[in-house]
Amino acid sequence: MTTKTTRRSGGRAARQAMRAAPLAEDIRPIRSGMEGGNYKPLSDAEVLRIHHAALDALETIGLADAPPSGVDVMTKAGAILGDDGRLRYPRALVEDMLAKAAKKVTLYSRDGKNDLELWGNRVHYGTAGAAVHLVDVENNEYRECTVQDLHDAAKITQQLDNVHFFQRPMVCRDIPDNFEMDQNTIYAACSGTTKHVGTSFTEPSFMPGMFDLIYDIAGGEANFRARPFVSNSNCFVVPPMKFATESSEVMEYCIRAGMPVLLLSAGQAGATAPASIAGAIVQAVAECLAGVVYVNAIAPGHPAIFGTWPFVSDLRTGAMSGGSGEQALLTAGCAQMHKFYGLPGGAAAGIADAKMPDMQAGYEQAHSNVMAGLSGLNMVYESVGMHASLLGFCLESLIIGDDLLGQSLRCVRGIEVTDDSLSLETMRDVCLNGPGHYLGSDQTLNLMQRDYVYPRLGDRTSPKEWVERGKPNLIENAIKFKNDILSKPSAVGFDPELDGKLRAKYKIHLKQ
Amino acid sequence: MTTKTTRRSGGRAARQAMRAAPLAEDIRPIRSGMEGGNYKPLSDAEVLRIHHAALDALETIGLADAPPSGVDVMTKAGAILGDDGRLRYPRALVEDMLAKAAKKVTLYSRDGKNDLELWGNRVHYGTAGAAVHLVDVENNEYRECTVQDLHDAAKITQQLDNVHFFQRPMVCRDIPDNFEMDQNTIYAACSGTTKHVGTSFTEPSFMPGMFDLIYDIAGGEANFRARPFVSNSNCFVVPPMKFATESSEVMEYCIRAGMPVLLLSAGQAGATAPASIAGAIVQAVAECLAGVVYVNAIAPGHPAIFGTWPFVSDLRTGAMSGGSGEQALLTAGCAQMHKFYGLPGGAAAGIADAKMPDMQAGYEQAHSNVMAGLSGLNMVYESVGMHASLLGFCLESLIIGDDLLGQSLRCVRGIEVTDDSLSLETMRDVCLNGPGHYLGSDQTLNLMQRDYVYPRLGDRTSPKEWVERGKPNLIENAIKFKNDILSKPSAVGFDPELDGKLRAKYKIHLKQ
Repeated sequence: MTTKTTRRSGGRAARQAMRAAPLAEDIRPIRSGMEGGNYKPLSDAEVLRIHHAALDALETIGLADAPPSGVDVMTKAGAILGDDGRLRYPRALVEDMLAKAAKKVTLYSRDGKNDLELWGNRVHYGTAGAAVHLVDVENNEYRECTVQDLHDAAKITQQLDNVHFFQRPMVCRDIPDNFEMDQNTIYAACSGTTKHVGTSFTEPSFMPGMFDLIYDIAGGEANFRARPFVSNSNCFVVPPMKFATESSEVMEYCIRAGMPVLLLSAGQAGATAPASIAGAIVQAVAECLAGVVYVNAIAPGHPAIFGTWPFVSDLRTGAMSGGSGEQALLTAGCAQMHKFYGLPGGAAAGIADAKMPDMQAGYEQAHSNVMAGLSGLNMVYESVGMHASLLGFCLESLIIGDDLLGQSLRCVRGIEVTDDSLSLETMRDVCLNGPGHYLGSDQTLNLMQRDYVYPRLGDRTSPKEWVERGKPNLIENAIKFKNDILSKPSAVGFDPELDGKLRAKYKIHLKQ
Repeated sequence: MTTKTTRRSGGRAARQAMRAAPLAEDIRPIRSGMEGGNYKPLSDAEVLRIHHAALDALETIGLADAPPSGVDVMTKAGAILGDDGRLRYPRALVEDMLAKAAKKVTLYSRDGKNDLELWGNRVHYGTAGAAVHLVDVENNEYRECTVQDLHDAAKITQQLDNVHFFQRPMVCRDIPDNFEMDQNTIYAACSGTTKHVGTSFTEPSFMPGMFDLIYDIAGGEANFRARPFVSNSNCFVVPPMKFATESSEVMEYCIRAGMPVLLLSAGQAGATAPASIAGAIVQAVAECLAGVVYVNAIAPGHPAIFGTWPFVSDLRTGAMSGGSGEQALLTAGCAQMHKFYGLPGGAAAGIADAKMPDMQAGYEQAHSNVMAGLSGLNMVYESVGMHASLLGFCLESLIIGDDLLGQSLRCVRGIEVTDDSLSLETMRDVCLNGPGHYLGSDQTLNLMQRDYVYPRLGDRTSPKEWVERGKPNLIENAIKFKNDILSKPSAVGFDPELDGKLRAKYKIHLKQ
């Protein structure tokens, strides 16, 4: 097949006409679930060494502090409880459970338009975290974040093409009661977005109340079980190598109630995990493998995400640093381990240490996000809006970050090499018969929308145009975009009847 | 080998003591020339298809506008001059010349401390370009740039660990005479930095005057030929597929005068190159292969850099856009072609379309810089300071960019997997016998400086510390750093005797 190349005098006019037309869904240049995998920080031999070291750790060090129910189910499966109270895992047990584990997991959206299909090298970017501050860009301040902030973040996320899921990025600091906070987190998120929602639960005793609300939103338990649109982000371990007793019990409940779980191991290299990058990966992999045994001992094939989230310490101070090159490598290395096991996996990227959405924030978020995508990470958590090493969430940064993630996704999409794209016929025509440039060629017009990504707020004007347009400022434009969304009701709010029912039954803090 | 792990109560004190000591050169965690190559946007088969398409293009389309001297030397080597005035290249000729081409090139620094050894996947970041504006951050303005600005950029570059070479990033708009401009570019650059300098020359007739100055700086022709510390960035083609007649003549002169050349093909996808990424790479590769034939027909094995620099158009307007994901892919794809030929190669990355050093600039520069590094690009040109799609150079961005490149370099360094780094013994000790954390372990202390990169201006404070420190602002701190360097004389200025001689002999515009 060759490219037909017709010379046109009306190149500019044709481009302008095309631009005016809305972009059909099937020719969008980037989308959720594109395949990465061309970046491999580890060799195959290194992947194997990490795997074997993790198996060694499980066999000889094991994990402390499993709840009695966990000890029961895992020892029945073949784990060994030591006199020191630690559960140890023979290699054969881990291998058996890996064979039983779900290899393909779908995280559902409420509207069916944003389902996340987690397998292979498919990449999805989204929010996550437990920030306690809202970054107030207009006043250059950090303040405690509220349920309204969380809902606003969900509403904005609903409008952003390149943010594919909404895991709770901040905690509702204005709701002192933890039970109410957990319920209101679900309400604020689901009333703002139909994209998949991830969240945490504080205590096992809360769980019936949580599922009451979730099943009500779903219109019944059966509906939820058919398309679980909320998953449980579960810190089931406290690194190094200890189960988080209560979270483990929460996880057991979620598994039985039909909710996918994110097996989240959040060690911090140099503090709660080894300071070496390889060592931090080994420990995270070992901990998540223990999680795989746990989940599949309860319910073989239950949807679970292998959530190796090792973070980084600034070793000078011991404080967390998420915006470093070390962090980007940790995450990309973990993605490769997920492929090795053939399991859906997730890790953290896109964290800024910068306090405000400045140049530092931009380069910190871009390094780890693009490397996560290129490594084929299925779920890129915390990829947008996250500042101050996870302590602050910023709505303007969320909006600017949509452009940033669009660029990362374009890189994930990669380079297509086909007879057409090699362009020999086009070159021949332009050079030998043609106008000596490609501006008006059919190929250029065809690729303008299919192949090229254009930023929403990112400014590409020349210095002259920039002056003529009054020197557009990125932050000011993000504020304007934010205010525009937040001045309108949620595009996907609950219907009034359901909302009335929920507000009558539950203590909803979000103002109507 | 296992890691000895001693528990320490004095972890924090030990870390602080270590921090106070200067970092020995041999344990610096990142450095010039680290090896990338773990990211491969193209499969081996795709690389071959691009290679064959480029050979096809050379054989059937060829290049127009070679100067008579070039036609002479290339037809003698085996190229065929068509009736249409185009030189066409049989495959066997290209293959012969590839065999003769220099596979290892060293670009020398004046002080011997920053030599660039271009082979394999060794990565070096530096400046380049021909910006006509200085980005005045303090006044939010673009203004014409001057020889003083160029010298300032060189002085700052001299102080930045992660900017490995200084190719002229902007043109001296205050020197109307092109001969004087070219000479003053050399003077302003070399008096500001001892790192390798790249530059362009406007006309072939200028060349004797240029080499007079360069040989004088070197202390004689023989000294320069032994360690050529200036190379010629040569736009020898005007894409698509035409030689730039005068630049080609400049190149011939440089080759005979012992100066390494950068064979620079700067097409723009969708304007002067095919709009498809693969097609733009094909054309750039074809043009640079013609350059390889040209150089090696004159002087087999002469040091030359395979300079495929395809840029990107925003296809909506036809204007150049350097900050896109498409640009990052073009550059990384080119790096893979350089490896395929086994030739030292360079391309452009790190360009911001953003007008100011804001969040957009950060993510634009980071995407392409880290992907260039991970792909093992030998020379990453334009990697720092470049704004407005190459029209503006920014000194504050150059300074902030040093941190950005430090992060890219950390990513290029990658993940070491050794018995030590796998950390099993450390884990065992911490979990079974130890304090339950890694803060004071020997491993942590050992890796603090060897493995971890700390930003100079990048802020990692907590929100609380950030307030206590008066909310440090990235841009303000960059301005302060800039003023500190610029308030002092050049750390590597010419000695007064040489300077007096140069100022007597040449028309030097830079104020003393």
